[in-house]
Amino acid sequence: MRATVMYGAGDVRVETVPDARIVEPTDALVTVTRACICGSDLWPYKNMEHGDAGVRMGHEFIGVVEAVGAAVRTVKRGDVVVAPFAWSDGTCEFCREGLQTSCLHGGWWGGTKLDGGQGEAVRVPQADGTLVVLPVGRDDALMPSLLTLSDVMGTGHHAALAAKVGPGKRVAVVGDGAVGLCGVLAARRLGAEQIVLLGRHPDRIALAREFGATDVVSERGDEAVERVRELTGGHGAHSVLECVGLDQSMDTALRIARPGGAVGRVGVPQDATIPAARPTFYGNVTIAGGPAPVRAYIEALLPDVLEGRIEPGRVFDRVTTLDGVPDGYRAMHDREAIKVMIAF
Amino acid sequence: MRATVMYGAGDVRVETVPDARIVEPTDALVTVTRACICGSDLWPYKNMEHGDAGVRMGHEFIGVVEAVGAAVRTVKRGDVVVAPFAWSDGTCEFCREGLQTSCLHGGWWGGTKLDGGQGEAVRVPQADGTLVVLPVGRDDALMPSLLTLSDVMGTGHHAALAAKVGPGKRVAVVGDGAVGLCGVLAARRLGAEQIVLLGRHPDRIALAREFGATDVVSERGDEAVERVRELTGGHGAHSVLECVGLDQSMDTALRIARPGGAVGRVGVPQDATIPAARPTFYGNVTIAGGPAPVRAYIEALLPDVLEGRIEPGRVFDRVTTLDGVPDGYRAMHDREAIKVMIAF
Repeated sequence: MRATVMYGAGDVRVETVPDARIVEPTDALVTVTRACICGSDLWPYKNMEHGDAGVRMGHEFIGVVEAVGAAVRTVKRGDVVVAPFAWSDGTCEFCREGLQTSCLHGGWWGGTKLDGGQGEAVRVPQADGTLVVLPVGRDDALMPSLLTLSDVMGTGHHAALAAKVGPGKRVAVVGDGAVGLCGVLAARRLGAEQIVLLGRHPDRIALAREFGATDVVSERGDEAVERVRELTGGHGAHSVLECVGLDQSMDTALRIARPGGAVGRVGVPQDATIPAARPTFYGNVTIAGGPAPVRAYIEALLPDVLEGRIEPGRVFDRVTTLDGVPDGYRAMHDREAIKVMIAF
Repeated sequence: MRATVMYGAGDVRVETVPDARIVEPTDALVTVTRACICGSDLWPYKNMEHGDAGVRMGHEFIGVVEAVGAAVRTVKRGDVVVAPFAWSDGTCEFCREGLQTSCLHGGWWGGTKLDGGQGEAVRVPQADGTLVVLPVGRDDALMPSLLTLSDVMGTGHHAALAAKVGPGKRVAVVGDGAVGLCGVLAARRLGAEQIVLLGRHPDRIALAREFGATDVVSERGDEAVERVRELTGGHGAHSVLECVGLDQSMDTALRIARPGGAVGRVGVPQDATIPAARPTFYGNVTIAGGPAPVRAYIEALLPDVLEGRIEPGRVFDRVTTLDGVPDGYRAMHDREAIKVMIAF
C-alpha cells in the first residue's frame, strides 16, 4: 500500500510501505477514506533531523472497516468509522475517567512502528476502545466536519473546557490556525459572551468571525496584551485558549488572562518551560489542558455536526489526493492553506 | 511606636517608627495583640539587597480596634479582629468573586508606605472589606489557631482547593513548612483518602502525621518522584500541593501529579518560569493557585477552629515578644523553629 513518510524537515514522501494488516485480536483493519494534515505535523516538517528511517505520518482519519480481530465487538466490516488522534483501550482507569490520551494500553499513530492516517490503510490497535461508528455513508457531504472530530474540533473543545469557557465569559483565542478556529466555534457553542481572536491572516480572521469571533486583535506581544485588556473591560479574558504552543504565544496567553481566569493550552509546547511563573501566580491564573481526549468528546460533538449546528469542516480550504500530500505540507507551512484534507 | 524593619538579608531590626494613625475615612487603627513570621518573610531575609530605606515587615496579625474612620461600618472600637495577609475593599468585582488578593483597591501590608503586622499597631486600609471580627477575647486560648486564618491555614486550604482535593483523592504535599502542614490539615478536612507529605524534618513530619499525613517521603528529585508513584498506585497523586516555591520543588510537584491531576501552588515562585512544560502538557496536569484569598476562607474555616475540629495553631512552636523578632527570623531561617508567634 502507499502511505506518507517523513524523512526530515521539508522531506515528505508518498511511498510504498508494507500493507496494513491485523496483528492482535483487538485490532481492526481500516481502509482510509478521508485524512488530513495537522498543524502539529508542521513541527517536524520544520525541525526534524534528517534520517534514513522514515516516520509514518497522520493521526486524523475516517475510513471503512475491512476486517476485525477475533476479540473486537463494537465495530464490524463495512462500518464507517472515525479514529481519534490517540488510540486507547476504553477500559483502563484513565479511559473510564475520560482521559483516553493517557490510556495505559494506548498510544499514538504513525512513527516507526505503526501506520499513520496519511496512508491507504491503517491497523487500528484497541479497535473497541478507539473507533466510533458514524451513521453516514462513506462519501457523505458532512465528511469534512466529521473528520474534524478526529482532532481539531475536539482539540478546540478541550481548550475551551480547560479554560473554563461558559455562559457570560469573556474569551480570547490565541492562534488562528485550524485549532484556534475550532476553539472559537467551541467557545461560542459553550455560551461565551465575547470571543477575541488573536490572529493576523485575513482569510482565517474572516472564517473566525463566521464561527463567532466578536473581536480580532492582530497586534503581537505587549501591544496585543494591551489591546485585549482594552477590549475585555480592562482586566483581561476569563478564558484564554492557547492554540499555538510557542513560548511567545503562551506568554501572551498568560498575560491576557484575567486574575482568577484560566488558560487552556492545546498547542504542543515547543519549549521546556512555561513562562511568566510569577505574574501568573499573583493573578491566580490556572494553566490547564494538554492533548485533547477527543475520543471522550465525539459523542458530545457528533449530534451538533450531524444536525448542522456547527460546521468545523469549513477549516479545510484545500483538498488533495494522497499524491498531493507533500505539496499539502508545503502549502500549510507557507500559510497558503489553513488545513488540507486528503480524499482517497 | 515600635515595629519590625528589614534593611537587607539577615538584617532585621525592631525600631521606633511613626505612630500608626487613621488617614482615610475607610481606615481602622488596630493595636496588634498577636502576629507572626511567615516563610515568605524568609525570602528577603535570604536575598534582599541592603539599603538605607528599611522595609516594614509582617502581614499576619490579630488585634483590637482602637479607632475607626468616619466611613467604617462593620468594625468598631474594642472589637478583636483578624486581618488577612492582603487588604481589600470587599466590594470590587474581584472581591465579589472571592478573589480578594486581586482587589482593585487593595494591597499588601508593610513595605515602605504602610504598616506591617510585626509592629505595635497598624493602620488598616479598607477596614470594612479587610477585617473580620472574632467572637473571642483578646487572649483566648484559641489565639494561635485563629492567627493562622490570617495566612497559613487559608493558604494551605487554597492549595488544596486549587489542587482539587476531595473525597477519595490521593494527595501529595510538597514541603513541610507551616503552609505544607496546614495543607495536610486542609486535605484531611476536605476528605482526602491518602496524604503523602514530602519533607525531611522529624519534628515537622511528626506534626504532619498528627494532622493527617498517611505517608512520608523524605527523598528528593527522581527518588522522591519514584517513591510517591509507588505509594500512589503507580501513577502519582490526583492532587499535589506545592508549598515551597522553588524550581526544584515545583518540578517535583509536577512530576508526581497523576495524568489528569492538578498542582495547587501557593509557594511564591522564586524562578521566572514553570518547569516541565511538555510532560505536564502530555499528562493534562492542571497548574493552579497563587496568593490565597484568605479573606474569602475565614468564614468557612472559623467554625472549625472555634469548635476545635482543626488546630492549625500547632504549627507555632515558638513564642516571642516584639524584641525577639530578629532572633525569630534567625530561628526560622536555621530551621530551629517551624513558625514563630509574636505576643504583644
